[in-house]
Amino acid sequence: MSLLVVGSVALDSVETPFGKRDDALGGSATFFSTAASLFAPVQLVAVVGEDFPSEHVEFLSSRKIDLAGLTKAPGKTFRWKGRYTYELNEAHTLDTQLNVFASFAPELPAAYRKAEFVFLGNIDPVLQAKVLDQVEKPKLVAADTMNFWIRGKKAELIKTLERVDLLFVNDAEARELAGESNIVKAARAIQRMGPKRVAIKRGEYGAMLFDHDHMCAAPALPLSEVFDPTGAGDSFAGGFMGHVAHKGNLEPNTLRQALAVGTVVASFTVEQFSLDRLRTVTREDVKRRFSEFKKLIHIDELA
Amino acid sequence: MSLLVVGSVALDSVETPFGKRDDALGGSATFFSTAASLFAPVQLVAVVGEDFPSEHVEFLSSRKIDLAGLTKAPGKTFRWKGRYTYELNEAHTLDTQLNVFASFAPELPAAYRKAEFVFLGNIDPVLQAKVLDQVEKPKLVAADTMNFWIRGKKAELIKTLERVDLLFVNDAEARELAGESNIVKAARAIQRMGPKRVAIKRGEYGAMLFDHDHMCAAPALPLSEVFDPTGAGDSFAGGFMGHVAHKGNLEPNTLRQALAVGTVVASFTVEQFSLDRLRTVTREDVKRRFSEFKKLIHIDELA
Repeated sequence: MSLLVVGSVALDSVETPFGKRDDALGGSATFFSTAASLFAPVQLVAVVGEDFPSEHVEFLSSRKIDLAGLTKAPGKTFRWKGRYTYELNEAHTLDTQLNVFASFAPELPAAYRKAEFVFLGNIDPVLQAKVLDQVEKPKLVAADTMNFWIRGKKAELIKTLERVDLLFVNDAEARELAGESNIVKAARAIQRMGPKRVAIKRGEYGAMLFDHDHMCAAPALPLSEVFDPTGAGDSFAGGFMGHVAHKGNLEPNTLRQALAVGTVVASFTVEQFSLDRLRTVTREDVKRRFSEFKKLIHIDELA
Repeated sequence: MSLLVVGSVALDSVETPFGKRDDALGGSATFFSTAASLFAPVQLVAVVGEDFPSEHVEFLSSRKIDLAGLTKAPGKTFRWKGRYTYELNEAHTLDTQLNVFASFAPELPAAYRKAEFVFLGNIDPVLQAKVLDQVEKPKLVAADTMNFWIRGKKAELIKTLERVDLLFVNDAEARELAGESNIVKAARAIQRMGPKRVAIKRGEYGAMLFDHDHMCAAPALPLSEVFDPTGAGDSFAGGFMGHVAHKGNLEPNTLRQALAVGTVVASFTVEQFSLDRLRTVTREDVKRRFSEFKKLIHIDELA
């Protein structure tokens, strides 16, 4: 079933202890849709500037991502510049140029309005709500957010969350949104705001899913080479939602599997700069690493 | 099979956001042996002062912990005073009074020398080596250490590690010992120092086991009430080693199970102050929570 994503398509300049890359393809919707397109047809809503290289458009097209909702606006593409230190846990933003993204007003092509799975990338919660006004009757509405909106547009965010079924956040965001340091209590508090499902991203420590009154926890794949964590969270969400759209149901076991698929997909993303690794990953690669993941977490029943 | 532990028995004064407790029973060997005694007979080597309350001795006795190696020395018992903030991740030491522990020179009673499973608690690596000189032919030698020894007695520690089969450390200690920020590389580097098995404790994020070329990763149990993290790491090691001694073999699946048993036991410890919760835990409680843990990590195979 089809999966709609709204978010940023950007040009990233990233520096890590292992190297440097300028104007690489980036943005939350790019990582999300590339990851999700491994599993399901994706419809993308985003805006780029006149300087956006056509090779990137061709790449997204080649993934069978529907680009009817990708607008080219006068001006420059959204640019983000960041640096990671050796811990690789946290991006230090050096520069953000919103450019055409500053006046982004997502308009859904008619064909997108019937989308059954919706992912509202990390954009202004007011815009997230406007996207929801345009979709007819989605089976699942997922959203991402960040501290910037939690601090700056809390009231608007809380209004949007009432319409969200699944929220993707990292630990710190969950704690800040809920005003609660215990992560279980924070997730429960977020569930009371609307989303009955909360996926909590913990970087190299893995991820958790709170699905109504069930919990699932998964470690990350231990990687001996991590080059560039940019896009890990978006690839996680893309793998997760791609798997759910592929399965087409919201069974607890589907969502648990999705947690693992997201974990596996994100583990590829960080192995090289930008989309370099993710763009070559196949479903077979995902299957293979999923098996490794199952071995990693395997523990026998107590006799 | 019997399990020998050498370490500290202490009186702890702990302050957390949820309360305060003075002179509670504490110490690494106390938490370890209480946890381990759920699964296997334990032989304890430690020293206390003349002020050590007899009720604590009676409690340890009641757990069928062999106290032939518990010496009472002239002077006061080792005291530790610490505080936890809301994050509960890290103990802030307010005061340490080594007292009788300062001149601790572990002497093994004759009956202990045949111990098959040995746990060298977090003490001076020189003393850890002296304990090893006194045991005949253990099946498994495990050890704990900390930044204090990694910084202050690195050469001695490295010499002791050559004789250790399984090292328990937390992330930060592993990174510091190996001089390597990537945790997989750090574990591999530690394996080259001697211990072919490395258990890495990650607090609320869980634990990992590197066993020769295998890896296992387990999340922690998500707890909505965490009162006092003191002793969590020692209970983890106690549950882990207790299970291995109970099983009596070093099969990879036994050690993976041990990782989960340690995780489960530690999850009880932190629910109340000091040993308050751990002392009432039964094997049935462990079994029940182990089942919950299995559900928590369950993920279906990909079709």
